[in-house]
Amino acid sequence: MEGSEGGHHPYVPKDLKLPGFVPGFLSWSTILGVFGLSSFLVVSLVWIFSGKSKKSKVDRLIMCWWAFTGLVHIMLEGYFVFSPEFYKEKTANYFAEVWKEYSKGDSRYAGRDAAVVTVEGITAVLEGPASLLAVYAIAKGKSYSYILQFAISLGQLYGTAVYYITSYLQGDNFAASPLYYYGYYIGANFSWIVIPSIIAIRCWRKICAAHQVQGQKKTKIR
Amino acid sequence: MEGSEGGHHPYVPKDLKLPGFVPGFLSWSTILGVFGLSSFLVVSLVWIFSGKSKKSKVDRLIMCWWAFTGLVHIMLEGYFVFSPEFYKEKTANYFAEVWKEYSKGDSRYAGRDAAVVTVEGITAVLEGPASLLAVYAIAKGKSYSYILQFAISLGQLYGTAVYYITSYLQGDNFAASPLYYYGYYIGANFSWIVIPSIIAIRCWRKICAAHQVQGQKKTKIR
Repeated sequence: MEGSEGGHHPYVPKDLKLPGFVPGFLSWSTILGVFGLSSFLVVSLVWIFSGKSKKSKVDRLIMCWWAFTGLVHIMLEGYFVFSPEFYKEKTANYFAEVWKEYSKGDSRYAGRDAAVVTVEGITAVLEGPASLLAVYAIAKGKSYSYILQFAISLGQLYGTAVYYITSYLQGDNFAASPLYYYGYYIGANFSWIVIPSIIAIRCWRKICAAHQVQGQKKTKIR
Repeated sequence: MEGSEGGHHPYVPKDLKLPGFVPGFLSWSTILGVFGLSSFLVVSLVWIFSGKSKKSKVDRLIMCWWAFTGLVHIMLEGYFVFSPEFYKEKTANYFAEVWKEYSKGDSRYAGRDAAVVTVEGITAVLEGPASLLAVYAIAKGKSYSYILQFAISLGQLYGTAVYYITSYLQGDNFAASPLYYYGYYIGANFSWIVIPSIIAIRCWRKICAAHQVQGQKKTKIR
């Protein structure tokens, strides 16, 4: 119907309508390079500043993760959620470039799939700020530190599950090539399966241990 | 294209294709009555049996909730997840009747929307058995009791959020009438917003308190 306005785009499925689509300006290596350097900067800063505290190296590493993932949620995913027309962007806006490029691995981003927008919305609006709060909570040794980290990790895992299962149920045909499928769709999300799993298990154990200590204390008081 | 095979169904949007659709046999009052009576039976049994323990009334009430919600997740939602053709059911199978009726409030069930199936799948397969485990964990005073309840409640809240937000993003036009919209789509899910929120907050507080006790103990040991 609006085939001529569909716009030529590099995404799959080919019949996805993206009227007004403007191709990306930056190469994948530039986009990835900026992301890598910014991430390295954030992680380095948190590592250095947390070195002044008495925190263990594990705690400091986890603080780096929360700062990194929090900023990714707020800045990158936040941009996506509130920019439904990013694929029409006529300048080399870095955030638009990221999603124009990532859509080659999962065209549901450009196509504004409801499940993807929902998961990204929850992630950007709730989990992003909560992740930065987790950095603070660990630094200050707050009593809610573990339960907060557990909550965010579980949210990340639930979101990733919804992300993959909805794609599977819809035919899993949203990547422009196997390279993009494994490089972007699988590769870019892999950390958000592995690291939240490790942190969730760690928090679960810490919380169980605290309850055992509390239980022992109650027994002694008796 | 297959308009003639689309089947006459009572759902909205009217152009939803459900070839082979067979209308429900039971009235809404029968379906709700069976649900209400079964739920009352489950809650009563858990309440009576838990009375023999030294558990507080709050703990016993929460055990009733986990037994109820666990069985709903496993039996009702489990049936839906693994019965993609429930709307073709030619007998008065109670589980098919439930979803034929509920689809009047949200036709995405009959239409097999990917987000709905995903959320129901996670709920039925993971949260259902975990809810029954929570009954056991509370009864036995396990150290993982609160963190388990917190995890399931958060999963229920995340699922409900995905459920409503995806519908909103897709136009929120899946109910056959305002009565079904408020009665089924909003009303039937309301408990799964309120109760998991209360339980999650309660668990958060209990876990923070346990960490404070642990912190005090550590200080004393020093």
